[in-house]
Amino acid sequence: MKNIAISIGDLNGIGIEIALKSHNKIKKICNPIYCINRVMLKKSCKKLNIQTPKDFVLSSIDGDFKIKPAKISKKSGAYSFSSFKRAIMLAKSKQVDGIVTLPINKYSWNKANINYKGHTHYIAKAFNENAIMMIGTKGLFVAFFTDHIPLRDVVKYIKKDLLIDFFLNLKKNINTNRVAVLGLNPHSGDNGTIGDEDSIITQAINESNKILNKNYFVGPISPDSAFTPDSRKEFQYYISMYHDQSLGVVKALYFDKSINVTLNSSIKRASVDHGTAFDIAYKNKAE
Amino acid sequence: MKNIAISIGDLNGIGIEIALKSHNKIKKICNPIYCINRVMLKKSCKKLNIQTPKDFVLSSIDGDFKIKPAKISKKSGAYSFSSFKRAIMLAKSKQVDGIVTLPINKYSWNKANINYKGHTHYIAKAFNENAIMMIGTKGLFVAFFTDHIPLRDVVKYIKKDLLIDFFLNLKKNINTNRVAVLGLNPHSGDNGTIGDEDSIITQAINESNKILNKNYFVGPISPDSAFTPDSRKEFQYYISMYHDQSLGVVKALYFDKSINVTLNSSIKRASVDHGTAFDIAYKNKAE
Repeated sequence: MKNIAISIGDLNGIGIEIALKSHNKIKKICNPIYCINRVMLKKSCKKLNIQTPKDFVLSSIDGDFKIKPAKISKKSGAYSFSSFKRAIMLAKSKQVDGIVTLPINKYSWNKANINYKGHTHYIAKAFNENAIMMIGTKGLFVAFFTDHIPLRDVVKYIKKDLLIDFFLNLKKNINTNRVAVLGLNPHSGDNGTIGDEDSIITQAINESNKILNKNYFVGPISPDSAFTPDSRKEFQYYISMYHDQSLGVVKALYFDKSINVTLNSSIKRASVDHGTAFDIAYKNKAE
Repeated sequence: MKNIAISIGDLNGIGIEIALKSHNKIKKICNPIYCINRVMLKKSCKKLNIQTPKDFVLSSIDGDFKIKPAKISKKSGAYSFSSFKRAIMLAKSKQVDGIVTLPINKYSWNKANINYKGHTHYIAKAFNENAIMMIGTKGLFVAFFTDHIPLRDVVKYIKKDLLIDFFLNLKKNINTNRVAVLGLNPHSGDNGTIGDEDSIITQAINESNKILNKNYFVGPISPDSAFTPDSRKEFQYYISMYHDQSLGVVKALYFDKSINVTLNSSIKRASVDHGTAFDIAYKNKAE
């Protein structure tokens, strides 16, 4: 079985509850190593009225602070970052085969002067990699050409070379014969009548397919009809030009099932596709 | 029963097939008046191998041309526009209570030198109205603050006064106590860290609610999580800042069920939420 480092996320949120509740399932499919120390593990269990598990293998992270459910806090922010960095270190040094990250709170990171927008952002910056964010579940995965940037900036990235790079990097990281590429504008620009950037996407698709000597990338597909039931029968992998073009669809269809995977990185990482859910933290409601 | 004028759409597409197949249901809920002449009706029925119905009430539109399934054509474009204009005239002169439009083909309109992007666009231009496009089905309706414009232009419309106008116009036209307003940027800008336009939306929501003396508009809601199952339990009406922020979700969830309604117009209009489907035209496959 693979060894997997699990970063513990923000201890004022629901991550630890999910880890505790899922442990019996998790340990059947991998050897989990939780990046938390015994003190904080005990505190979390006490708060949740769950007995501290005896078979949690820990990679101990220094720290001792009061858990305050749903509280944005410098201490919990710093702790979640230390836990995350430990998981990465374990992966870098080949002590584990991959990492799973539990949700952190960005505002707590900010409070602790950690200026990354999230896990993927840190991995991309720290290792100077073109990490790719992909979200979904078996049958429907969406890779994001741009993600956490203002909507007004999306159009600036629609350059042929950037698109081809992204397409070919994605291809190396997924196992499929066809990827649907969404257009940028409504109706993919309707032949240039609603914006002209979709012709650049067309060129990038054609040149990528030529390089691969195969019609691997299909599109640009009109974004509004890319996820109809018929279209989803045809495609299992999609490329989204921007964050909210597709993520609402994934969450509407598969909210509890979808995961967030970092591709094209030296670190193999997966995570839940939700946040710290402060509204239900330590209420024994997390699933 | 209400009298409803039905514009016949592009006769090279699936509209007429849907009208013929639905007629027995339709006539139980309204008195339909089909804007087509008997010659063209007969030709369509012949092509479909369906007997020409005897109880079709017609508002006869001049014209006689060969039906060519799936063909972009000046003649069918011009005919569909005449049919649409007749339906509007019948509504304007109060001979009918509202209109239903079958799908037209934009390229055929272009060929016939009709420079409107669609039905809603024509109604808005012809009557100088702030017509609102709303798409969905019972339980989930989305009104579009912007629709058929390039993605790069969306941000230019995010002005407080335009938003307040739109909000209040929408309020007058729908019957609900709460409307979810989507943000513009990923995570509604995450407190200004991913774009700053969402604060304008917040202001517009607050001022609109003040005018209405009620917290009618809720948001800005993070677009990616606006349509999770939990969120859809909370909201039945949404305002989308742009076309592909929500339309993919509506079509993923309710492709065959959703309709397109024109609100805030002197013409009451509904339509199917799909196009001419040239790929299955005159193959007896339309549902």
